[in-house]
This record gives sequence, C-alpha cells and structure tokens, in this order.
Amino acid sequence: MEAIEQANRAAVGRMLEADPVLIDVVPACEAIPALADGRKILHAGPPIEWDRMCGPMRGAIAGIAVFEGWSAGLDEATAMAAEGAFEFHPNHHFGAVGPMTGMTTRSQPVMVVENRTFANRAYCTVNEGLGKVMRFGGNDAQVLKRLAWLRDVAGPLLAKALRECGGIPLKSLIARGLSMGDEMHQRNVACSGLLLRELAPALARTSQDVQLLAELLSFMGGNDQFFLNVGMATGKAIMDPVRGIECSSIVTAMSRNGTDFGIRVSGTGDTWFIAPVEMPEGLYFPGFTETDSNPDMGDSTIVETIGLGGFAMGAAPAVAGFVGAGAASEAGNYTRAMTEIGYGENPEWTIPALDYLGVPTGIDIRLVVETGIAPTINTGIAHKEPGIGQIGAGVVRAPMDCFKQALRAFADEMGVSGQ
Amino acid sequence: MEAIEQANRAAVGRMLEADPVLIDVVPACEAIPALADGRKILHAGPPIEWDRMCGPMRGAIAGIAVFEGWSAGLDEATAMAAEGAFEFHPNHHFGAVGPMTGMTTRSQPVMVVENRTFANRAYCTVNEGLGKVMRFGGNDAQVLKRLAWLRDVAGPLLAKALRECGGIPLKSLIARGLSMGDEMHQRNVACSGLLLRELAPALARTSQDVQLLAELLSFMGGNDQFFLNVGMATGKAIMDPVRGIECSSIVTAMSRNGTDFGIRVSGTGDTWFIAPVEMPEGLYFPGFTETDSNPDMGDSTIVETIGLGGFAMGAAPAVAGFVGAGAASEAGNYTRAMTEIGYGENPEWTIPALDYLGVPTGIDIRLVVETGIAPTINTGIAHKEPGIGQIGAGVVRAPMDCFKQALRAFADEMGVSGQ
Repeated sequence: MEAIEQANRAAVGRMLEADPVLIDVVPACEAIPALADGRKILHAGPPIEWDRMCGPMRGAIAGIAVFEGWSAGLDEATAMAAEGAFEFHPNHHFGAVGPMTGMTTRSQPVMVVENRTFANRAYCTVNEGLGKVMRFGGNDAQVLKRLAWLRDVAGPLLAKALRECGGIPLKSLIARGLSMGDEMHQRNVACSGLLLRELAPALARTSQDVQLLAELLSFMGGNDQFFLNVGMATGKAIMDPVRGIECSSIVTAMSRNGTDFGIRVSGTGDTWFIAPVEMPEGLYFPGFTETDSNPDMGDSTIVETIGLGGFAMGAAPAVAGFVGAGAASEAGNYTRAMTEIGYGENPEWTIPALDYLGVPTGIDIRLVVETGIAPTINTGIAHKEPGIGQIGAGVVRAPMDCFKQALRAFADEMGVSGQ
Repeated sequence: MEAIEQANRAAVGRMLEADPVLIDVVPACEAIPALADGRKILHAGPPIEWDRMCGPMRGAIAGIAVFEGWSAGLDEATAMAAEGAFEFHPNHHFGAVGPMTGMTTRSQPVMVVENRTFANRAYCTVNEGLGKVMRFGGNDAQVLKRLAWLRDVAGPLLAKALRECGGIPLKSLIARGLSMGDEMHQRNVACSGLLLRELAPALARTSQDVQLLAELLSFMGGNDQFFLNVGMATGKAIMDPVRGIECSSIVTAMSRNGTDFGIRVSGTGDTWFIAPVEMPEGLYFPGFTETDSNPDMGDSTIVETIGLGGFAMGAAPAVAGFVGAGAASEAGNYTRAMTEIGYGENPEWTIPALDYLGVPTGIDIRLVVETGIAPTINTGIAHKEPGIGQIGAGVVRAPMDCFKQALRAFADEMGVSGQ
C-alpha cells in the first residue's frame, strides 16, 4: 500500500537524517525530573512488576536501592521491593535506555545524547566495565563503590569536558567504528577508543586534578564496552523521532527485561507487543554453562533497531567467535540476512569488508513476518541468580510472536484484516 | 637443503619470539651517539649520495639542515649539501628506521623500542601527521615549527609517561590492531588509538602542564598514522636479531630511498642488494596525478618484512580502496598471495576475517624467485619536487631484481651455483 511505503520512507528518512551528539553527563534526576520524587527505579525492557522479575533484575534492584540510600542492606531492599516500596517503570517511558538490567535512578549520572536534527534527547547511564557489575545483576560493595565513583568522579569530569568541547558527534564516529571491527553491541573497543581520543584533550583542559584525570582515563581506556551505553543512547535518540508515524510498519524499539521481550512499532504508537524472551545461544565463561544463564535482557537491542549489533555482524568478524556465531569469515551472512527485513541500507554506516554495504536500516514488521526471519541480536549473558554477573555472550533472536502481534494490531489500525 | 631449513626455522623463530616494547623517547644523539658529532643526516633506504637523491629527499635534507641550525635557509642548505657539507648514512646502519625521506638527525626525538627477548633496541622519529610534512619532502616554516614542537614538547612528555608506566608492550597491541582494520602501514588508526589509551593515564600522571598535555593528546588523537613510526621501530627491533644467521634465506630488511630499493638477507649479512625502485600504482589526492609522483621511498617496508602492511591487507579491507588495490572484499587475496613467499605464519598476529590466518612471516628469497611473486607493499606517494609533500597512496612491488641478486649471492655463500 502506498500509504505504508510513504510512511516507511519518512520513518527511515528520519533515522538517516538523525544527528546524534553526546553533549553532557548529568544526574538522572536532572535529565528526568520525575525521578527526583519517590523511590522510582527505571529498568530495561517492557513494563514488569517485582513478582515476575528475573533473578539478576531483582539483584540489581536490591543493589540500587542500597546505593540510593532507600535500604540499609540487600535483604531489606529485597523485602521492601516485594512489599511495593519502589515504583518500577521502563527506561523507554522516560527517554532512557539501560543495558541488561538497565537500572536508572535519581543520583546515577546519565549521558545525554541530543539528536540535533529533531532537538530530542536520550539518556543512558555510564558503562560500569566488565565482570561483576550491576547491569548483570551484581550488587555487592565493590559494585556499589564503582557506581559511587561514577557518580562522584567520572560523571562530573565527563560533563565538564563535554560542555567545554561542545559535544562529540556520534554519527561519523560510529561510521568509523564500523570500519574498525565494532558492531557496537558486543564489540565497542574501536568506538570506545575513538571517543576517548576525541574527549581526552578536553578532559585534560578541564580537569583540575591530574590524579582523578588519570583514574578516569584509565577506567575508560580499560573498558572496551565503554561506548555501548553511548551507542544505546544514540539509538534511543535516533528512534524517538520515528515514533507515531501513521501507517509506518517500522520498529521503533526492541527491548527485554529478562522475562519478556517487547517491541514498539511506529504506526501503532507506544503500545508494547510482548512475548516471552528467548534464551541466548552462545559461549560461556569458564565455570559456567547454559543451565546458569538467564534469558535475554536489556534495552541494548536499541542498537539492532538502528542497524548495528547483530545487523552489523559483517563489520565485526571477531565478534562472531566471541558470541559463538560460527566462522569469523561468515559474519557477513548475518548482515546479509538482516537486509531481508530491513527497509533500506544506511549509506553513511557502511561495512568495508562487504564492499561498503550499508547496514540494514529500519526493521519492517511486514518483512519479518513474511520472511520468517527474526532480528538477530548480539547479547551478553547474565547468571540467572542475583548478585553474580556476566557469564557469557551469545546470539539471540527477537521472538517472532512480537512481530505477529504487532502486525495484527498494525493491520487493525490500517483498517485491513490481519495476516 | 637441511642447513637452510634449520637456519630459516631459527630466523623465523627469532621473529616470533621477539618481545618489542616502546620504552622511551630520547634525542637522537642520545640513542645514536655518532650523531652528536659533525653534520650527520640519516636517511631512508640503502646508501645514496646527494647527486642521486630524488626531489623530496633533497627537500627534506635542506629542511632538516635548517632545523639543526647548520644552514640559515633552504637555498644555503641545498648549496651546502651539494658541496658535501653533510654526511649521509642510511638509518638502517644505526639501528634506526624512518618513514619516506626518513630524516634522523641529532636533536630530533626518537622513540625507543626494546626487543626484550634479545635486549636490542631500535629507533624511529615521532610521526609528524599528515599533509605537508618532512617525511614527504616538506620543509617550510610550518614543517620546521612542528618538528620543534615534537622536540620541545611532545618528545619530553612522551618520555616521562613511558618511563613512569614502564613501557607499552607492542606485540599484543599490534595483534589487537589487526582485529580492528589496521595493517600498520597505510592504516594505523586503531593502533594509534590503542597506544593513546594505554599511555593517556601515565601522560596525565606525569604532566605538570594540562595545556601542554591537552596539546599532545590532541596531536596524537588527530594523527591516524601516529603508530606508523612505532610499528616501524617495532619491525627494526624484531628483525635486527635475525641478521647474520648463516644459511638463512630470510629477508631482514627492505628499504628504499626514492631512487633505489634495497634488501638485506640474513645469511648474506649486511650487504644491500639494490635495484631501481618502482613507481607505486595508486590513488592521488585531488589536483595531483601520477606524473607528479616520486618513485617509492622510505624504511617503512620494514613492516612488510615482519608480515604487516601489504602482507596483512586482509585485516584492513578499508585500506584496499585507499591505496587503489581493488575491491575491499578481496583484500584477503593480497595476504593469501604473500603466504606463497612467507616461510610461516605468525600465530599471534592473526586476521579474524580470514578465520584467524596468521600473517605471512619471514620472506624467503628462494620462494620469491621461485614463484615470481614479489612482496606487496602499501605505501604513501610523495610529490617528486622538494617541499610539496604527500599526494596519494598506493601499492608497489619490491623489485624482483633485488631478490635475484640476493639469491645469487646467497648461493655463492652456500657454495652452490646460483639459479
């Protein structure tokens, strides 16, 4: 139907016209004023209440409640959560995204990505690094200490530097990262380095304490996934202006909370289409197996929504081995498969090894259902128990049922019978 | 012959056992005491005198003579050079290497790479960046001002940081760069970034002046080829312990001065086998054509000698387009061709996109002559006139005649008749 074609052209047009710039780091309650009052906890994925939350999500909630001073300890926090002492909302409902458990609360620093074309902003916390971290359900003293350092040291230093240099444009930086082996989900070493080198002079100019500066440079330089959260905020900033385009069948968000997988589609507004989340297939760190693993989790699938992650696997042959996705030389096959469900290709985000094929851009729910090809997602794997952390990395498919439900609702909206 | 096999095994073994570490930056006359006396100028390539030097080499010599205070201006320097006022030697004769014209003189800062396995050291100046620079024959006030800044600001800051952190191990850093699209000759953006992020904390800790620190971070972060000179010193540090192994037919150096191409072979000691240098085939910057170009130049072919550059083209599909070497998706073919003339593969320097094929390592002159496959070199192209600079990038072959001469000499050495 011509109306759908036109709407999808407009939707993908907005994606391609986006101009995301990392401009600031501020306390979450400044970026999202609603967080200032009450005990609000934003989490990854579609809406969910405590009784349905998975282990690592519960672990992260207990940890963040202690961090925010709402509970004296993890046990008390867990009891309070079960009694309804905290208010839970998806990050996506407040212009934010968060990896894995995706905790966002009032005092955490969030990075601000402004989409200069459409003047909207999106937020994501600062990546904590690897190992035992809150996004994978970690919640012990070491995890909380790192969060405090991010709040008290890293956040303010990054903020000063970003304000001084006028922000870091992300579209060209991501383009560069694609030529350097990153797919921006499970591999961000190039973009993390590019961001560091862009920001380092401003950090030096605005830093009063060289010891703290050295700490921050060391933290950023030692964290190959630092850019993940920047890429996620970029994804949210790109996709928010695509929401609510009448007749568009383009996916605006894919997200999971460890229990459910949810998608949103432009033409059907802010409705979540939800199905049980799948279990990633992947490789486990020594000492862990798939029996330890939690189902797929996090808002990080926003990067696939914009054509990165599993969609850009061809840019990152080294990722294929890391996530157990077969031979490195065949990584391009994942990208080629995703072109089947993408509305178009991004001419500015290209993959040299595929002779500069643009990443598949704009997931069309009609194509997903027609072809039976679900979006490929590169993901981290959390232990299913609270307090443990990451145990592997893998590949997972978005559940087909989300797309089928969405297509039925979309057809209703269009006044035609569903397929 | 078994003696040759054994010698080559030993030669390539030494290459693979090498442990290059960037440990310091010092004035060249400290690293190479012979430079302290007289007006000595080290240049790229095999030995050459003024009357046979190409335009950009002459331009660089005039510039460096002014920089060192030996001449009041470029014309005077040129006249002095013609009258024999300067002493010319190859970098290779003093444990050094230099890109393109390869000027090394007493007061320039040189980076020190120590091969910890064999306790030898190699030196290379600090990369000047792109555009009009001395290595491409540039010699105006702006070029000399940058050299002064490298001497007075960058060199001392880098030295302090390297001493404080105990040096940066380069073997693993290069391995990482190969998974990030670098081949370490015409593309060094990944390794430059990895080096910056490794060094930044120490730079912060040892820097007294945040303004100068910011200048250095900005210079390093803005120079995608910063690592080239580090990679070259790495190559020299790796290959020097391979020199002079009786019965070994492995190439220990390939180098060119813009007039001649020279190679050295382990079993024939320090003899240069020389042939006229070839003209690169490549792509030119706007406004320039092949009629402007100077024949191939520089000691940078030391990176091909250790299996990088043209030998690692498969790691860097984006380079293929930049140097005009055909489709990006076929970059791997260059690497595969080089396995025909390489004695072995490097298990620690692998190329993900080629399913972790190790880079071809140890150029065997017997295989070069037998197969008729000359080493592929990725190179920058200089304008043939002095004072202009880089005008493009391309691919060039090492002249087959060098290898034929070397094989004859090698056969004589072995007491068998030449092929």
